[in-house]
Amino acid sequence: MKAVQVVGYGKPLRMAEVAAPEVTGPHDVIVRIGGAGVCRTDLHILEGQWAEKSGVTLPYTIGHENAGWVHAVGSAVTNVAEGDKVIVHPLITCGLCRPCRSGDDVHCEQSAFPGIDTAGGYAEYLRTSARSVVRIGDSLEPADVAALADAGLTAYHAAAKAARKLRPGDRCVVIGAGGLGHIGIQVLKAMTAAELIVVDRNPDAVQLALAIGADHGVVAGGQHVEEVLESTGGQGAETVIDFVGEGGATRDGVAMLRRAGDYHVVGYGENIDIPTIDIISTEINFIGNLVGSYNDLCELMVLAAQGRVRLHTTKYPLDRFQDALDDLADGRIRGRAILIP
Amino acid sequence: MKAVQVVGYGKPLRMAEVAAPEVTGPHDVIVRIGGAGVCRTDLHILEGQWAEKSGVTLPYTIGHENAGWVHAVGSAVTNVAEGDKVIVHPLITCGLCRPCRSGDDVHCEQSAFPGIDTAGGYAEYLRTSARSVVRIGDSLEPADVAALADAGLTAYHAAAKAARKLRPGDRCVVIGAGGLGHIGIQVLKAMTAAELIVVDRNPDAVQLALAIGADHGVVAGGQHVEEVLESTGGQGAETVIDFVGEGGATRDGVAMLRRAGDYHVVGYGENIDIPTIDIISTEINFIGNLVGSYNDLCELMVLAAQGRVRLHTTKYPLDRFQDALDDLADGRIRGRAILIP
Amino acid sequence: MKAVQVVGYGKPLRMAEVAAPEVTGPHDVIVRIGGAGVCRTDLHILEGQWAEKSGVTLPYTIGHENAGWVHAVGSAVTNVAEGDKVIVHPLITCGLCRPCRSGDDVHCEQSAFPGIDTAGGYAEYLRTSARSVVRIGDSLEPADVAALADAGLTAYHAAAKAARKLRPGDRCVVIGAGGLGHIGIQVLKAMTAAELIVVDRNPDAVQLALAIGADHGVVAGGQHVEEVLESTGGQGAETVIDFVGEGGATRDGVAMLRRAGDYHVVGYGENIDIPTIDIISTEINFIGNLVGSYNDLCELMVLAAQGRVRLHTTKYPLDRFQDALDDLADGRIRGRAILIP
Amino acid sequence: MKAVQVVGYGKPLRMAEVAAPEVTGPHDVIVRIGGAGVCRTDLHILEGQWAEKSGVTLPYTIGHENAGWVHAVGSAVTNVAEGDKVIVHPLITCGLCRPCRSGDDVHCEQSAFPGIDTAGGYAEYLRTSARSVVRIGDSLEPADVAALADAGLTAYHAAAKAARKLRPGDRCVVIGAGGLGHIGIQVLKAMTAAELIVVDRNPDAVQLALAIGADHGVVAGGQHVEEVLESTGGQGAETVIDFVGEGGATRDGVAMLRRAGDYHVVGYGENIDIPTIDIISTEINFIGNLVGSYNDLCELMVLAAQGRVRLHTTKYPLDRFQDALDDLADGRIRGRAILIP
Repeated sequence: MKAVQVVGYGKPLRMAEVAAPEVTGPHDVIVRIGGAGVCRTDLHILEGQWAEKSGVTLPYTIGHENAGWVHAVGSAVTNVAEGDKVIVHPLITCGLCRPCRSGDDVHCEQSAFPGIDTAGGYAEYLRTSARSVVRIGDSLEPADVAALADAGLTAYHAAAKAARKLRPGDRCVVIGAGGLGHIGIQVLKAMTAAELIVVDRNPDAVQLALAIGADHGVVAGGQHVEEVLESTGGQGAETVIDFVGEGGATRDGVAMLRRAGDYHVVGYGENIDIPTIDIISTEINFIGNLVGSYNDLCELMVLAAQGRVRLHTTKYPLDRFQDALDDLADGRIRGRAILIP
Repeated sequence: MKAVQVVGYGKPLRMAEVAAPEVTGPHDVIVRIGGAGVCRTDLHILEGQWAEKSGVTLPYTIGHENAGWVHAVGSAVTNVAEGDKVIVHPLITCGLCRPCRSGDDVHCEQSAFPGIDTAGGYAEYLRTSARSVVRIGDSLEPADVAALADAGLTAYHAAAKAARKLRPGDRCVVIGAGGLGHIGIQVLKAMTAAELIVVDRNPDAVQLALAIGADHGVVAGGQHVEEVLESTGGQGAETVIDFVGEGGATRDGVAMLRRAGDYHVVGYGENIDIPTIDIISTEINFIGNLVGSYNDLCELMVLAAQGRVRLHTTKYPLDRFQDALDDLADGRIRGRAILIP
Repeated sequence: MKAVQVVGYGKPLRMAEVAAPEVTGPHDVIVRIGGAGVCRTDLHILEGQWAEKSGVTLPYTIGHENAGWVHAVGSAVTNVAEGDKVIVHPLITCGLCRPCRSGDDVHCEQSAFPGIDTAGGYAEYLRTSARSVVRIGDSLEPADVAALADAGLTAYHAAAKAARKLRPGDRCVVIGAGGLGHIGIQVLKAMTAAELIVVDRNPDAVQLALAIGADHGVVAGGQHVEEVLESTGGQGAETVIDFVGEGGATRDGVAMLRRAGDYHVVGYGENIDIPTIDIISTEINFIGNLVGSYNDLCELMVLAAQGRVRLHTTKYPLDRFQDALDDLADGRIRGRAILIP
Repeated sequence: MKAVQVVGYGKPLRMAEVAAPEVTGPHDVIVRIGGAGVCRTDLHILEGQWAEKSGVTLPYTIGHENAGWVHAVGSAVTNVAEGDKVIVHPLITCGLCRPCRSGDDVHCEQSAFPGIDTAGGYAEYLRTSARSVVRIGDSLEPADVAALADAGLTAYHAAAKAARKLRPGDRCVVIGAGGLGHIGIQVLKAMTAAELIVVDRNPDAVQLALAIGADHGVVAGGQHVEEVLESTGGQGAETVIDFVGEGGATRDGVAMLRRAGDYHVVGYGENIDIPTIDIISTEINFIGNLVGSYNDLCELMVLAAQGRVRLHTTKYPLDRFQDALDDLADGRIRGRAILIP
């Protein structure tokens, strides 16, 4: 089959002809790819940022946001059958460790990550596990939802966790209305009556946020902390969800937080650097957020099927993978680029 | 001032001229009534159903769903000032017992209940406490929200409690789309992405429920349990909120519940009568629901100000109290009757 | 191998020579039985009470409280190896349905129950699944902990769930200090500082309860409701855990409950029969409790290894199964009877 | 009456004769001091560290850890009466703001703090509020529990919050076995079955921790991170409670934390300085902890009355205040110094 592979760090991806994956274990599921999301992490992989962390052997096939149709299943697979339309959870998890047994499979003690440390989905077929495939509704198409498999799932996880504590009258600041923030706002609208204040440097992103349900939009241009504080009666917001995590976002974000508030860390880049006396005297919390669990992905697919979460996509044939990466690197993608084999 | 009083059980209410309440304690707040809801409980009071329970001395002024303007305040009142527009929480609570100190003021160990065991709001003025008044937004009028003070607050409390556990993809059955159910449905829509299945004997009520956001409507006519089970893939709903509690509702409602589900008891009349083996083998819960707390009322007022919760009202001058009660008793009220002094 | 089988309802169990179970699926685990608990449910099975519910084909091997050593494992088993000392969770669960993926495997949509609907542990070997075996510490012996696999796990599940809400100063009434109550009391002592009030008809059981940590013991003899209320200042207990569920226990237990309290249903037999108005006016909850999850069993094994949970056992060679059942039926067992192959 | 006052920063405290406080408001409670704890914060106040933050006008009476007997009450006080033995919560709170109405009175929007920004308890009498006094059991003496009013309450708050998530088999690292850590360990033992690993630089403190219930003691001397990791099978602890917060404690403490773990910040001094990528890739949380609420103090007094929490005290007559402060500054106090008027 055709597969797009990393052949060296600092080098371009290369299309190769490789053996299609086959069922070798009882839980294996082979997915015929319907769409594979092109993610900024893919650029970072090529730069070598993940080389040591993943320990992957080159060449290998990248692509960690995948959806498609079940092509073949192992002997112990009972939850999907050939032909089922599925989205693929980014992790392959063991199902036996304590985190897996608690519903917290993201912290599985023996997980694999296709597209990062094993063969991914920029290809015609992908091997994953019965524990990683979520059937999607008739109204959804793999190519339309593929990008929800990782970026969208991370945003869902953080927004849904925050929503559990938000009451009517509470304020939630969303920092960053890009890909993740865009999903996060839609999730918050679906699951909470809290007031949403969206902060972004890009006025267009702020406008888009208002169009999909944000209650206030603030363009980050120097006065944004004051603006947010003013809109909360000077006290700050009960919750901040930071989808940026760099360029001073964390310092500004903490300044927008109310006493006893929760600061959700999602985006990353800079350090959280804050005096412990400030943490204890206001009794604030910093909440880490990784990608969502399998059940989170099921829930996100419900919201997608209900039309409550939508993502704009730009589709490219798999052969044009380089154009997609270039467009992403140069900021020419609105929403998400999707490769179609 | 004018006040409508209970002068004997089994006798009609009577308009009387009584002394207006005055500030006597440091926390007292005198509210000039802008609207007082006429509730089915008022009919029950007249029938004598509450005589023993409340122990109230006749004659006394009834009316426990009140809103208006602050007229005078005691020396220790700091949260409202003369002229403020307020809705009145139905209970006067002590603020010092453990439940009050936990935010669970409804279970205050020393509460009073104006309109039930002390002078209520079918009058020009009402005495309550600083702990019982919630300022309402400029966009809201006392006469429009008065009925949310008790009936609406009960529905909010149950729906918001249920919403905390409902995830996208979960199903919530609402039994009864009358006054409380109507509010409950709007609250659930505002606070959860769960699928709402509304069951009522009255086809018009079901239609109205669908118009305000229910996902499925089921007319209770013998096949309703099967219909609900079918719409949940045969497994039943994660949550049932029963606003009826009589006429077989609890037996039917339990049959609609999924394993490990929550049955919220709000309406009352009949007994819950269920084998313990059925409770343990399916591991279901029965959750009691009384009126909401002060903070619940604040949150409901936020939803009302946002336009997410609306209630139809029919207004009567206070002098026409008998017409309002007759119209309620005879089923001629749509939404809620409100007396305006 | 030797196995004790049900050959007909209303007939005695019979020792048979049957084929030992073998690994047939990738997750299979064959356990060499070290001890199998004799449970009152086994008597009920023989009386035919479970015939219709389980749909099991006779003859079959009973025994659902098992522990031993891993004898053989399927190709996909990674969590245990031959020779490991294990206790066996009573259910075989799928690991793929939503409850399993949430850590709530007890509500698995496709579970099997060895000893009830498939071959159990009154035998030399038992087939179960990788998902059902918990390794136990070096200090524990299979025959000593076998009875914790079901009866003990049920008590742990209810007590641990209750403990999550109990604060210092709260009161927890335990109704029934028999097998389950005995474990429940030890679990509550290990996990909460709440005051424990134990109620039982048997003065010896009450004495034993006091010896293992109960704060108050009440012999149920007509005045027990009043005694409990007195010991809680007239207000009742925040939590009641009812391990009896028959003979009027639920009526008495509800009368011991404080406003906003939780009534945990564990024992069964009679109906909960209570006016809905009593549920809503005091806002109490009835909480169902089935057996614990896999993770619950892991936690219980931690408490057992720490010496915080102990159970008295009487051991019988497997051949003497009839004596063990007779002694149980005639009330001659203290703690739990265990069959040793 | 006699009162010990701050008369200038950088100057010694001075004993003065001042007017005894009187009831002026309806909620006022005058407490005759039975014991006032001498806290390190008192030294910091004298150094001027709190001058700007508190804005207090000199001279004023210090002392924020107080217990004694009710001497007089305002007209609206119903929860205590003259002669009652009480411990005094450090904050005077309004009871009307949303945090107060939620049980989170520590975040009251209008609180006062006797001993910090208004007259405290190094004196014969103290004025506080009905909302701040907790009656203590007959078995407790004011001078013995006074130090639990602030230092102990902070430790209780953090430990009880952490305990809510700790399950049997989980590990909790306590950094710092000094005054707060000592209370925290006793609270954790009373409320959880988790394994307690205590880390301190002082071998004597580690010994004491083991004596009161810690499961492992680690002397911080360079290898402590490795030792803790080893004792948790290399994975780290589910929870770290850091009572130190300076001298590198936070860097070391985070290194001891397991994926998805909670880091409780209690002690303060240095900065939390951590890459956001480390927070998200392990999905850890930083939880701020301020002093406990009124209800927390009630619960701590239950543990004290049960003998589950004990604190060593050294008593000084009020006149010898300077000796007490000197002994504290010079490290000669074991447990806590208490001034007795």
